[in-house]
Amino acid sequence: MPFSTNRMLQSKLFTKTRKEAPADEQSKNAELLIRGGFIHKEMAGVYSYLPLGLRVLKNIEEIVREEMTAIGGQELLMPALQDKVLWERTDRWDDEKVDNWFKTKFKSGGDTGLGITHEEPLTQVMSEYVQSYKDLPFSVYQFQTKFRNEMRAKSGIMRGREFLMKDLYSFSRDENEHIEFYEKVKQAYKNIFSRIGIGHLTYLTFASGGIFSKFSHEFQTLSSSGEDTIYLHEKEGIAINKEVFTPDVKKDLGISDDFTEYRAIEVGNIFTLGTRFSEALGLSYKDEKDGSAPVFMGSYGIGVSRLMGTIVEVLSDDKGIIWPEEVAPFRVHLLSLGAKNDVTEKARELYDALVEKGIDVLFDDREDIGAGEKFADADLLGIPYRVVVSERSLKDGGYEVKKRTEEKGEVLSLEKIFEMFR
Amino acid sequence: MPFSTNRMLQSKLFTKTRKEAPADEQSKNAELLIRGGFIHKEMAGVYSYLPLGLRVLKNIEEIVREEMTAIGGQELLMPALQDKVLWERTDRWDDEKVDNWFKTKFKSGGDTGLGITHEEPLTQVMSEYVQSYKDLPFSVYQFQTKFRNEMRAKSGIMRGREFLMKDLYSFSRDENEHIEFYEKVKQAYKNIFSRIGIGHLTYLTFASGGIFSKFSHEFQTLSSSGEDTIYLHEKEGIAINKEVFTPDVKKDLGISDDFTEYRAIEVGNIFTLGTRFSEALGLSYKDEKDGSAPVFMGSYGIGVSRLMGTIVEVLSDDKGIIWPEEVAPFRVHLLSLGAKNDVTEKARELYDALVEKGIDVLFDDREDIGAGEKFADADLLGIPYRVVVSERSLKDGGYEVKKRTEEKGEVLSLEKIFEMFR
Repeated sequence: MPFSTNRMLQSKLFTKTRKEAPADEQSKNAELLIRGGFIHKEMAGVYSYLPLGLRVLKNIEEIVREEMTAIGGQELLMPALQDKVLWERTDRWDDEKVDNWFKTKFKSGGDTGLGITHEEPLTQVMSEYVQSYKDLPFSVYQFQTKFRNEMRAKSGIMRGREFLMKDLYSFSRDENEHIEFYEKVKQAYKNIFSRIGIGHLTYLTFASGGIFSKFSHEFQTLSSSGEDTIYLHEKEGIAINKEVFTPDVKKDLGISDDFTEYRAIEVGNIFTLGTRFSEALGLSYKDEKDGSAPVFMGSYGIGVSRLMGTIVEVLSDDKGIIWPEEVAPFRVHLLSLGAKNDVTEKARELYDALVEKGIDVLFDDREDIGAGEKFADADLLGIPYRVVVSERSLKDGGYEVKKRTEEKGEVLSLEKIFEMFR
Repeated sequence: MPFSTNRMLQSKLFTKTRKEAPADEQSKNAELLIRGGFIHKEMAGVYSYLPLGLRVLKNIEEIVREEMTAIGGQELLMPALQDKVLWERTDRWDDEKVDNWFKTKFKSGGDTGLGITHEEPLTQVMSEYVQSYKDLPFSVYQFQTKFRNEMRAKSGIMRGREFLMKDLYSFSRDENEHIEFYEKVKQAYKNIFSRIGIGHLTYLTFASGGIFSKFSHEFQTLSSSGEDTIYLHEKEGIAINKEVFTPDVKKDLGISDDFTEYRAIEVGNIFTLGTRFSEALGLSYKDEKDGSAPVFMGSYGIGVSRLMGTIVEVLSDDKGIIWPEEVAPFRVHLLSLGAKNDVTEKARELYDALVEKGIDVLFDDREDIGAGEKFADADLLGIPYRVVVSERSLKDGGYEVKKRTEEKGEVLSLEKIFEMFR
């Protein structure tokens, strides 16, 4: 786990749950996340991540990092402030061409903007390091805060004006080498969506390409709150984005005309850039015959904060959030009911024992809160396992363990609990 | 270690070392870090962190995180985009009052700025969570990218226009409770500077306070490249910033007038805010007698990227960087010399064995690079232990191990090496 602590006392946690979200919040993800104290709304499309929310965000980040490392990606970190000159070379500076820049000025003179993506500066960096075909292929990625000056922001953390993105860029000798890596990323993305618990709702989707490829690929998660419309071929398990859903494309893909329309959330995209950026910014290499060739590039995005919002959209129920185990802020939500000494003491013992075993525990040790409110909070916060210590559970010989996804719990002994969380 | 991998092949690493830094780079830290491929200069005061540099930055971040967690800090993450309204309430929005804002506009209308610090939005968040004295005290912290529109930027990553900062904020019932926490932070900061290897050069320094305290405290690291001037009392181990070095202050501190002037780098500061922000933004609590009182606040900063620059400034030698063990990008720099099969094979075996033992290793497996260049690179990169596999070392019965800080190495067997890095 990417944390320096795996324990938290709810009585010390500064956030509290609320009955109501801000009136101006329209999205389910923001509503539940604000009510649970996971995030705080600063302005439309601009959110803070509070302790519980940051833990979820970091868990997702860590899963993405592991999968990026597994395909050989080298992690780096680019700045938000952008050098206008580079973006002018690719004709992406002008507000007429790219309409969602935040622009500002240096006091020392000159314009700058807040990075909406990082092809330009990265291509520039690589032009200082890539000389020969021997330096290729490779790929780099980052977790970096992107800024996009959206006109509207009403999808909660699914479309922020400031948001955390994982962007991966690949640098290959030619298209064949590029395609090999591109296919690896496809698989890595599938692993990510499966691990964060939305794999069963997420489909590889054909979308519009660029100069260098007929299609790009998106990963779309079915959800009525999605901003995209896709046509899903259930049997083949692939989809086509409405923007390219034409007779020609269907024929191209060679699958029968058996599509169903869905709303969906774009949770990832992979894109063949070809030599668009390397040619504009002078990123070339010496090939084996001493000739010069432009580097063949690809880019691959995942909105980490958007993933968090998507999980809430598609996995919550009417009581609150349901975090999948790998992304949950804690694995166990321990509740002590009543302020009787015996219960308090047993609950604290169990807390220490679980933490000692390396299990992440949020302990609701609050003494002035009734059972009903603690249960409601536990449902809202959505931690996978709820463990209740009460007079009744102790009389029944242990602690009541209930999964967030199940209606009924069962009383288990300490040994059984350790076995369960091993 | 905060990484998903503890191995790296230098032949695959996209960065390369260079003989020269950019001509416009005046600071030693930026010069060495750029030559080593740790960072890339995007614009004056704006840098990218490349794979080796990001590992150092993350190591420092993790040390700071551990120490903040140890004193009870709860981690969160605020956005860069700021709500102008909050800053107007504390009179810190106007460029006449605060001269280093980057300001920009929402396409949907209205001004915003990039956070130079976060007292205002955090106080606002807390006003939604703090009600009673029972909710206090607590503290929160973040690792967050700050933006400061400096007129000049010539100190490399020691004074960036965009930089990574750890900012901690405390919320207490009154001054006494505040002071108790303030003292804990002092100790946590000392732990941090000691762990990252600059403790012996870093002094608690009295600096100007605010409305609520006579002094604030800085931690200053002696360095000729520092922007500050301090007067150090060697015997007492404390210093006074030039800005408050007056007869009155010396008398106040009650120590003899035996000070030496030094240039120093401000690596941390701790500050009593009192009720300046809580009063302006309405952060108050119900006390035990049902009265209302403003929350008493403190703020505590450490520039994480500045720490990285400081380490380079004060610990490098004329061959390159010398990373202390806890912050080094890797613990071991393994070099194979010559392309003979036996050497290559033995080096690879050692690499796998070290990685298997959980030791971080950068393996210089490059085949077209001579011994002299590999040694020079190792010195420049500054990894604590250099392990050389060569025909000679194998003939001598093992591998030559040399500390970056020592002139001579010694040939050790595999068993001895494992013992050493246990």
